[in-house]
Amino acid sequence: MGVSELDHAVCRENVLKPMDAEQLREHAHKMVDFIADYYKTIEDFPVLSQVEPGYLRKLLPDSAPDKPESLQSVLDDVQAKILPGVTHWQSPNYFAYFPSNSSVAGFLGEMLSAGINMVGFSWITSPAATELETIVLDWLGKTLKLPEEFLSAGQGGGVIQGTASEAVLVVLLAARDRVLRRVGKNALEKLVVYSSDQAHSALQKACQIAGIHPENCRVLKADSSTNYALNPDTLNQAISRDISIGLLPFFLSATVGTTSSTAVDPLLALGKVAKCNGIWFHVDAAYAGSACICPENRHYIDGVEEADSFNMNAHKWFLTNFDCSPLWVKDRNALIQSLSTNPEFLKNKASQANMVVDYKDWQIPLGRRFRSLKLWMVLRLYGLENLQSYIRNHINLAKYFEGLVLEDKRFEVVTPRTFSLVCFRLLPPDNTEDGGNKLNQDLLDAVNSSGKIFISHTVLSGKYILRFAIGAPLTEEAHVTAAWKVFQDEASALLRSL
Amino acid sequence: MGVSELDHAVCRENVLKPMDAEQLREHAHKMVDFIADYYKTIEDFPVLSQVEPGYLRKLLPDSAPDKPESLQSVLDDVQAKILPGVTHWQSPNYFAYFPSNSSVAGFLGEMLSAGINMVGFSWITSPAATELETIVLDWLGKTLKLPEEFLSAGQGGGVIQGTASEAVLVVLLAARDRVLRRVGKNALEKLVVYSSDQAHSALQKACQIAGIHPENCRVLKADSSTNYALNPDTLNQAISRDISIGLLPFFLSATVGTTSSTAVDPLLALGKVAKCNGIWFHVDAAYAGSACICPENRHYIDGVEEADSFNMNAHKWFLTNFDCSPLWVKDRNALIQSLSTNPEFLKNKASQANMVVDYKDWQIPLGRRFRSLKLWMVLRLYGLENLQSYIRNHINLAKYFEGLVLEDKRFEVVTPRTFSLVCFRLLPPDNTEDGGNKLNQDLLDAVNSSGKIFISHTVLSGKYILRFAIGAPLTEEAHVTAAWKVFQDEASALLRSL
Repeated sequence: MGVSELDHAVCRENVLKPMDAEQLREHAHKMVDFIADYYKTIEDFPVLSQVEPGYLRKLLPDSAPDKPESLQSVLDDVQAKILPGVTHWQSPNYFAYFPSNSSVAGFLGEMLSAGINMVGFSWITSPAATELETIVLDWLGKTLKLPEEFLSAGQGGGVIQGTASEAVLVVLLAARDRVLRRVGKNALEKLVVYSSDQAHSALQKACQIAGIHPENCRVLKADSSTNYALNPDTLNQAISRDISIGLLPFFLSATVGTTSSTAVDPLLALGKVAKCNGIWFHVDAAYAGSACICPENRHYIDGVEEADSFNMNAHKWFLTNFDCSPLWVKDRNALIQSLSTNPEFLKNKASQANMVVDYKDWQIPLGRRFRSLKLWMVLRLYGLENLQSYIRNHINLAKYFEGLVLEDKRFEVVTPRTFSLVCFRLLPPDNTEDGGNKLNQDLLDAVNSSGKIFISHTVLSGKYILRFAIGAPLTEEAHVTAAWKVFQDEASALLRSL
Repeated sequence: MGVSELDHAVCRENVLKPMDAEQLREHAHKMVDFIADYYKTIEDFPVLSQVEPGYLRKLLPDSAPDKPESLQSVLDDVQAKILPGVTHWQSPNYFAYFPSNSSVAGFLGEMLSAGINMVGFSWITSPAATELETIVLDWLGKTLKLPEEFLSAGQGGGVIQGTASEAVLVVLLAARDRVLRRVGKNALEKLVVYSSDQAHSALQKACQIAGIHPENCRVLKADSSTNYALNPDTLNQAISRDISIGLLPFFLSATVGTTSSTAVDPLLALGKVAKCNGIWFHVDAAYAGSACICPENRHYIDGVEEADSFNMNAHKWFLTNFDCSPLWVKDRNALIQSLSTNPEFLKNKASQANMVVDYKDWQIPLGRRFRSLKLWMVLRLYGLENLQSYIRNHINLAKYFEGLVLEDKRFEVVTPRTFSLVCFRLLPPDNTEDGGNKLNQDLLDAVNSSGKIFISHTVLSGKYILRFAIGAPLTEEAHVTAAWKVFQDEASALLRSL
């Protein structure tokens, strides 16, 4: 078949035009209104979805359609079938886990990133994506007063990971390979990782992935005597013991704002222990890092100058839509040595001449979205002063809630509040066998199944604890007041029924 | 300080309201118009950004602003400072690497996902996100005629990974841990991985991460005698050799549509070798998987019934904005055994009762976006018939381009075209020392720096090859014709200058 015949074959076919600018305009305007209306009505939904497992399979067909359907029919299905199965993280009555902030600026950044839809694995595939990321992470690093070694002018720099899980994994790999290059790769089974028992499960998962032997993961006990922070003496003793039996301590992860109770590990003292022992020191400030943009909170990361890597989640409490997890390292080459590949099909002059950053070598995946746009938009459209007041407002609301709990003698605040999380519980009647754990679990179930608020829980020193985490962008004082009334009413009902 | 005082303190502060539904509506409508206008003018930009390394640092301030700025000032900066640094993957004149499709439907799905902004790590955190993902991956699995074991009704199922890199990593980990549970974890150094030398670098990176020893990664030679497909005999011999020296073969990755030349490994024969030897068999159809929704192309994945896992990128050639990389496995428990954690703060009744899927245990990160929305929208707003015609159109355009190359005797087509990639090169004058490699590199530089089109390259059997990959959603026949004229003109100029 000659060229001209093929030519005709191409022309004859009635071909889908999936990216028509005017159709995009028309349909996306509709979607904007749909989303804006969602936010207007968000308080009408139960915060925690009340559907049963398997609900959606009964509502959708068994296979994809052969013919196109209209946008309206899809939006109708979103309203009728999808939204009832959504747990509304952006509801002002969402107080579970930690927040995952949306904002107008973050949303606009997501839109623009999806609009440009480029894949920024190497500098050449969109120089702006790489360079804006470097610049904005320098901005944020300066705002947090991170030491200069974490900024891009030296040997370090920042990179946006998807999540804190990926952040701790990439630095664990960098640390693993750094020590294995020195002692030989068959020493993997001797490598030891340290953290408190309050560290996030992401560390355990990173160890599983990296092949660290589970029996070499030192999960050091932290208790109420230190408000669940890791004691540097405990760390020091564990390291000495491991060295004495021929093991190789190589990685410490400390947390600023633990998931259970926002405990703050003492970075300076821990960092000195790590440094003495040649251990990579990672700081996980996934939640509380955002708070440290306020001068009055900056002291919580004092000692970060001892760290090799520092991570916070802009998608938690910094108004940047999920996902956006900035990570800073002092030695970018350690990351690159673990994570780089250099296949022929990706070679290009700028990369080969070592003139540019190729972020593919700082992360697990190859492809990457233009995530710095949304962080840049948040910083510019709000400005640091507003962002500081945003954080302070949530901390004040948490103080207010803590005060409410303290005034009701049926409850106790379990650990001192540090940021915007209040850990509390309903006190059980005397001689309750399990110390009130079932009572509090029942209280959690009752408030969550009311649909009025959504909270989550933890266990500290064997006690089942309710976590009230303030940080959704729409939460105002009235929501906190109303939430407290839900707790009081459900507690009264439960106590009556005993 | 009592509750009432705190109350006042909260009220007094002038607090940012970052998620106001009417501001979202107003600003997002502006952003829609900005993006629609971008698509209207996309052909006015050089496809490959022509900026110099470091260009953006000169244009932006050194630190984040204290005060808020207007959306208009940010959009002005996007136009003046960001877009010149963008390489326009959605341009109809983009023919590099593989495509990364945007579409109206994919874009709407991204918008909605960013609007809801929930984090679906466990079923309870948004049942709809988990359930829609399972359903849509069953739809797509049926469309591809994957064996039933890959669907969710049995022991297997689908999950959306961010990228093919993460897909191959999670199955490599599952396979690693499955064999180590059997033979003991100190056997890591004996594990052997197999692929052809045409496999994507993501496999090498996954091995680095998983701690597979580099000398145990068998990169088996594939050459023009098999059109760069892996020969099952070569595999068989390598496995036998490794077993004879006490090593443990455990993982094979085959590719349907290799990155360099879209070679297709013979799945059926390779799968039988894998099965005989108890090896996990992964199929990477990142690029070409999409083409297999057309009945006439389905045979390229014949033999997938022998595989343990199968992956394609919906974000490449399936109109689903980046990132969206569906992975199917036959044994979901193998994934879960490698990747699950179960911290107290994530426990909930549905998960504890084992009634639901928690996708956090099928992937590297904990958090995850509502990515199934965009794939669902693509399938519904276009329908399978349109999606098939979309694929066929690109394949026809590639045939057309191949015909153009074949008609110009100064060029050669290097490998037979299979899908929508044409591998070709300019023939050098006789007795050119390097066989024409520099000539073709110069041709690539010339066409790319013209800004008119963007292509990339590879090396096959020592020859530098130009890759012309058709698949951008806006590409029409006229763009292909014009692109060919760019090659011809630049080739004439180069040959004249010799």
